[in-house]
Amino acid sequence: MVLRKPYLIFLGDAADASDAKTAFGLRDWIREDVVGQMRLPHCRVDLGLPEMTPRRACAAGAGSLVIGIAPVGGGLAPAWISTLHEAAAAGLDIVSGMHTRLREVPGLAEAAARHGVRLHDVREPGRSFTVGSGVKREGRRLLTVGTDCALGKKYTALAIARALQARGVAADFRATGQTGILIAGSGVPLDAVVADFISGAAEALSPAAAPDHWDVIEGQGALCHPSYAGVTLGLVHGSQPDALVLCHDPLLTHLKDAPHVPIAPLPQVLDAYLAAARLTNPKALAVGVALNTSALGEPEALRACRAAEALTGLPATDPIRFGVQTLVDHLLAQQ
Amino acid sequence: MVLRKPYLIFLGDAADASDAKTAFGLRDWIREDVVGQMRLPHCRVDLGLPEMTPRRACAAGAGSLVIGIAPVGGGLAPAWISTLHEAAAAGLDIVSGMHTRLREVPGLAEAAARHGVRLHDVREPGRSFTVGSGVKREGRRLLTVGTDCALGKKYTALAIARALQARGVAADFRATGQTGILIAGSGVPLDAVVADFISGAAEALSPAAAPDHWDVIEGQGALCHPSYAGVTLGLVHGSQPDALVLCHDPLLTHLKDAPHVPIAPLPQVLDAYLAAARLTNPKALAVGVALNTSALGEPEALRACRAAEALTGLPATDPIRFGVQTLVDHLLAQQ
Repeated sequence: MVLRKPYLIFLGDAADASDAKTAFGLRDWIREDVVGQMRLPHCRVDLGLPEMTPRRACAAGAGSLVIGIAPVGGGLAPAWISTLHEAAAAGLDIVSGMHTRLREVPGLAEAAARHGVRLHDVREPGRSFTVGSGVKREGRRLLTVGTDCALGKKYTALAIARALQARGVAADFRATGQTGILIAGSGVPLDAVVADFISGAAEALSPAAAPDHWDVIEGQGALCHPSYAGVTLGLVHGSQPDALVLCHDPLLTHLKDAPHVPIAPLPQVLDAYLAAARLTNPKALAVGVALNTSALGEPEALRACRAAEALTGLPATDPIRFGVQTLVDHLLAQQ
Repeated sequence: MVLRKPYLIFLGDAADASDAKTAFGLRDWIREDVVGQMRLPHCRVDLGLPEMTPRRACAAGAGSLVIGIAPVGGGLAPAWISTLHEAAAAGLDIVSGMHTRLREVPGLAEAAARHGVRLHDVREPGRSFTVGSGVKREGRRLLTVGTDCALGKKYTALAIARALQARGVAADFRATGQTGILIAGSGVPLDAVVADFISGAAEALSPAAAPDHWDVIEGQGALCHPSYAGVTLGLVHGSQPDALVLCHDPLLTHLKDAPHVPIAPLPQVLDAYLAAARLTNPKALAVGVALNTSALGEPEALRACRAAEALTGLPATDPIRFGVQTLVDHLLAQQ
């Protein structure tokens, strides 16, 4: 799945910034790939980008209109439909991460065909995969893994890929979830792949590359999560990571959406990930800890990093707050 | 997915017994649910069952015609199509484990609708699932697990379920693959489920039951298999097994279809499965080893069982050759 950038971000009638996480992710990570925003009259979210109609965005070079909002329930609101038709008529591809499929929007598939534009549902793999082979391939790979879901695996991978590029190291961010795919412009929605092909899809996502090239792969789920561990394990096996970065929220003692499951101490979690990773890459190493300290003040955040370092013997940082230089130093020193 | 028994087994024009594993599995495990066989003129496989047309099978009480053969490639041969139409016209449901879907057979969906019969593709889940919750449910569960694929997990589970029933213990075999589903008459084709829902599908397959009821669940893949471990881990988590039986082929040193991956010693393999199982059931125990000794003479087979017992401290047997009494004794003594 390859998307046509740059994007016009559609904010619809979003009432709250928390409904527009995808839009903010795009603005924060790929500002250069966003030409502007389009909002309906009652929209209360503002990215601070130029306001544009689809026609003007197209004239400014935009390739796609991206639905940047995900209201609770994941549905596509009737009020948005005329904008989607307007975008197709203007010559923009339409990209959605919603549960509702774009081809189910009345008349939209026909309009897209008529105007020669494409509809992309980034929750659909859009292709088939073979089963994983487990055969080692060239190139280096870093995978972000977690003690739980939704605690910074995507942001950490993006930050590390950027930091490597800034140092002149050949590196690509590899997206495995919908927002990551919108940011990267390509990727595989790993949790939507048929179970038999998880590791095969991860192999396809990160193909053989030059020996000193880094793929920095967005992790999914958690190995100790009773809902999603199968996806996580297939991703670990298929990624064949040389390096693992463990993402964690220092305030969490139990899984957020399975509160009866305690989170093991970080060294134990790392051991479990390393044991899994070494099936397909015996040289896999842990290179750092990324903490999500957004709920802490700065002194507490620093203390949490030092505590994680003492516990694991690895550099620990909050990638958003303190950057990833220490992780990248350690990564490059180890290889 | 619930199938209408008893079955008429269709052998088509099968040239070789190895193409008819599903048919033999049905005859060997649920002879009482099979009314007869139907063969085309050039068929060279014989189950030794009464020959019947679909019409006669229907009169004899049959509910479904089952395609009992899977030629290399998994395709549905043109020569079979008239028989499928004949079966629909006679009032039989049609059941297939082929890659080709029955609804893609020209005219068959219309014929089925006209005659009020159903088409079942057992490779399709046929329903959606929720993500796994990891919340412990009532009832006891045994899961067969393996050092590799295709070494007896289904047969072992069937043998244990039968042995429990023979002792008056309430027990059900729970099928996770196509042949298992045909034998049980219901089940979930776990490897065809969307990745996010593997453990949820395993939870749905084996719902809460009476405290002393056993679900004996057919394992899939292997935790140390680079192609399929994600499916295996989701099944382990969702099954919440109280008891694990490890299936192994004593002649194997490496995975059959990933020959670069060595198989670890049995105690290490068991430890990995137990660690995974204890996430959702802290009381999970290993209760035995099931060896596939079909390539060995009887003295070597016995020696292999004794060696596995010495290595693991658990009873070891070949379920087909020596029965599962020792495993079931140990299982019931432990609970």
